Amino acid sequence: MCIWGRKSDERTFGDRPRRIVVIGAGFAGLAVIKGLRKSSAYVSVIDRQNHHLFQPLLYQVATASLNPSDIAGPIRRIVRGRKNTETLLADVTGIDLDRRVVTLADGEAPYDVLVLASGATHSYFGHPEWEEHAPGLKSVEDALEIRRRMLLAFEIAERETDETLRREWLTFVVVGGGPTGVELAGALRDVARMTLAKDFVHIDPATARVILVEGSPRVLTPYSPKLSESARRQLEGLGVEVRTGSIVTHIDAEGVHIGDERIASRTVLWAAGVAASPLGRTLGVPLDRAGRVMVQPDLTIPGHPEVYVIGDLAHLEQDGKPVPGVAPAAAQMGKHAAANIIRTFRGQPTEPFRYVDKGSMATIGRGAAVAHLGRFQFSGFPAWMLWLFVHVLFLIGFRNRLLVVIQWAWSYLSYDRGARLITGRAEGPLVRGLTDSRLPSTSEAEAIQG
Amino acid sequence: MCIWGRKSDERTFGDRPRRIVVIGAGFAGLAVIKGLRKSSAYVSVIDRQNHHLFQPLLYQVATASLNPSDIAGPIRRIVRGRKNTETLLADVTGIDLDRRVVTLADGEAPYDVLVLASGATHSYFGHPEWEEHAPGLKSVEDALEIRRRMLLAFEIAERETDETLRREWLTFVVVGGGPTGVELAGALRDVARMTLAKDFVHIDPATARVILVEGSPRVLTPYSPKLSESARRQLEGLGVEVRTGSIVTHIDAEGVHIGDERIASRTVLWAAGVAASPLGRTLGVPLDRAGRVMVQPDLTIPGHPEVYVIGDLAHLEQDGKPVPGVAPAAAQMGKHAAANIIRTFRGQPTEPFRYVDKGSMATIGRGAAVAHLGRFQFSGFPAWMLWLFVHVLFLIGFRNRLLVVIQWAWSYLSYDRGARLITGRAEGPLVRGLTDSRLPSTSEAEAIQG
Repeated sequence: MCIWGRKSDERTFGDRPRRIVVIGAGFAGLAVIKGLRKSSAYVSVIDRQNHHLFQPLLYQVATASLNPSDIAGPIRRIVRGRKNTETLLADVTGIDLDRRVVTLADGEAPYDVLVLASGATHSYFGHPEWEEHAPGLKSVEDALEIRRRMLLAFEIAERETDETLRREWLTFVVVGGGPTGVELAGALRDVARMTLAKDFVHIDPATARVILVEGSPRVLTPYSPKLSESARRQLEGLGVEVRTGSIVTHIDAEGVHIGDERIASRTVLWAAGVAASPLGRTLGVPLDRAGRVMVQPDLTIPGHPEVYVIGDLAHLEQDGKPVPGVAPAAAQMGKHAAANIIRTFRGQPTEPFRYVDKGSMATIGRGAAVAHLGRFQFSGFPAWMLWLFVHVLFLIGFRNRLLVVIQWAWSYLSYDRGARLITGRAEGPLVRGLTDSRLPSTSEAEAIQG
Repeated sequence: MCIWGRKSDERTFGDRPRRIVVIGAGFAGLAVIKGLRKSSAYVSVIDRQNHHLFQPLLYQVATASLNPSDIAGPIRRIVRGRKNTETLLADVTGIDLDRRVVTLADGEAPYDVLVLASGATHSYFGHPEWEEHAPGLKSVEDALEIRRRMLLAFEIAERETDETLRREWLTFVVVGGGPTGVELAGALRDVARMTLAKDFVHIDPATARVILVEGSPRVLTPYSPKLSESARRQLEGLGVEVRTGSIVTHIDAEGVHIGDERIASRTVLWAAGVAASPLGRTLGVPLDRAGRVMVQPDLTIPGHPEVYVIGDLAHLEQDGKPVPGVAPAAAQMGKHAAANIIRTFRGQPTEPFRYVDKGSMATIGRGAAVAHLGRFQFSGFPAWMLWLFVHVLFLIGFRNRLLVVIQWAWSYLSYDRGARLITGRAEGPLVRGLTDSRLPSTSEAEAIQG
């Protein structure tokens, strides 16, 4: 009867195969799937996108250095060849804990064990109307939209004849001084002063202002004060204006308010607030203020030992502070959840999760970064080299790794960026807000040719 | 007074700089700009996109092999460092021949010499309602939309439980048996039988039907009957169903009609009709039936020696047949127009254009192609190698060339494709037309695991 050998206990649930449903194929979800690869249970991976995204490098797509497919790969290619794993491209609308069913926009998926790893999204602190003026950076689409706006701003400035408006188009505001905001601000200045420097006739892109606005007293708050100070100095070295202790109170199509001060800017990027995936709310269990699910030490939720919540959606205290919402923590949780699932299938008790902080790093610009590894702190060029090395190492797939290295090497040597395309169909006119065509007067044309 | 030496005559027009406006930065427009690089006239390049696109490889973006930026580069990077050349991102709405002004959606651009190279667009033979069901392939956005539909069709088929509907999602119809249609059909079969072959649990992608529909009696009509026949055999060898002499009479969201026969298909691609850019009509000069401007032998239009029309928008007879609408012809016209412009600046007469056909080639699939070079005809693997070599050679920019070679080599060795991302925000539900969630029954899950 039992043809599966010693694993049959993991596989069946009563008289049918066990079904594990994993929602979300980010770092957490992928680690679960990886951890279950020797299990013979039936695994369904549900994601809204067909690809896993290497989010730490998404800002490089937004700033025209990398292509989307350099940092994203199809989920089904990652699980290829695993006969007991299916990949479903679907929108999850809710979870029915009693019936043990995930409801989809177009169907249902029953489970015996559920792993919820749907991550986080942007939060505009109760100002959803800011979103259209200040896009955030979570998906490939977000990155391409930011790329479009950034490149378009220089194009419009080139044609703008009104000096005040031209300055507005050459002013970029990044809201939020965490890693993403710091990376975006630094990369914007790199684009302005190096990549685009020689490409325009009527403007000098290097004069573009980049203003980084952070509410707390320092940038990169999760890092030590010393590294924060170093990051600030490196940003200022690239020409970024760093405004700490500054709260944004209003955003519209033409700028931002910081308290009473108005900064006129046609390109505002949002890197400030993160909100947990709304699926957490459908569980009916306690959440923290940011909407994250308060999980038990073994990563399950109270009263439901068959439901795990992991990654950015989970809130777990360790040594008095929450496990941070970073990729390594998500991956460690995923690995741990998979191990706990296998333990329960074998009738063993689950074990509590413990996050091991192996260090963290943030890049700031060309040759500029900060990093801490245990007791060691680095900044500047050594930190940047370390950052490069680690990120290439972790990119999924040999092919991507090679292409990314070549593109980085090329960018470094040539100061060029390979993906400077304005794509996507914008709503409204091609060039919104442009007052008049930029055409050279006779004297200007003379001067240019002189 | 004259500080420009012998070139001052080219530069001024009366007492101000001469202005040359080039509309369109395709192969024709780019060749004009290149040909004018030593002229000291003031050149304005106007394009709706910020990038030049290497159109012959666009189908590789549509079929997930290459990234957009591998085959497209910013126009301003191409003309970088030329102080007398400006690049304008703008929509041209009309041309006023009397006032010598190009009207833009947001301004005007006066000219002394105008070069119109705005190319061609799709034509649906008087059925604009077909466009939403059967996207064509002209821009980066088009290619990404085709990629999205192609990959999504397999995803939906994987989840579809109704066998009839599943077959419809696995049936692809390509309308038009010219080079683009042949390339798309061949690449679709390559994707189905190789790239995706092992990635699905519930379907076998290799069973996907690809039907190529062509109205005339053979595919690739510009080629010799022998090469057409070879192309047909190579397509059939890849598993493409070739239907020549078949006129499409209706297209909707669920399939196409060929005469009275209905082919149920959820993915229809359009590679049939090409119409000249509508800007040709605004000139008020004679057009051919496809809307192309009938140009004079020196590429100017009647009565306006200062207006050149070149590339796919131009109709010129040579040896009793029209110069074909292909990239080499466009580039040759551009070079010639630039030379004629310089001649007139120097007070010399213009010279008639003569197209030199250096051969042509079309790729069909992995190791499959046809080519003719003068008297020589190739097909199969040798033609494919030739095609590879020529296309890599002509790709603009060292960086792109290296990246493309690496990606092609990788694809060839691994049967994989690097850009399998479903991106872009679709209207309506994520997965349109899906009737029910695909979930394994117990017996099916058993069978899969066995």
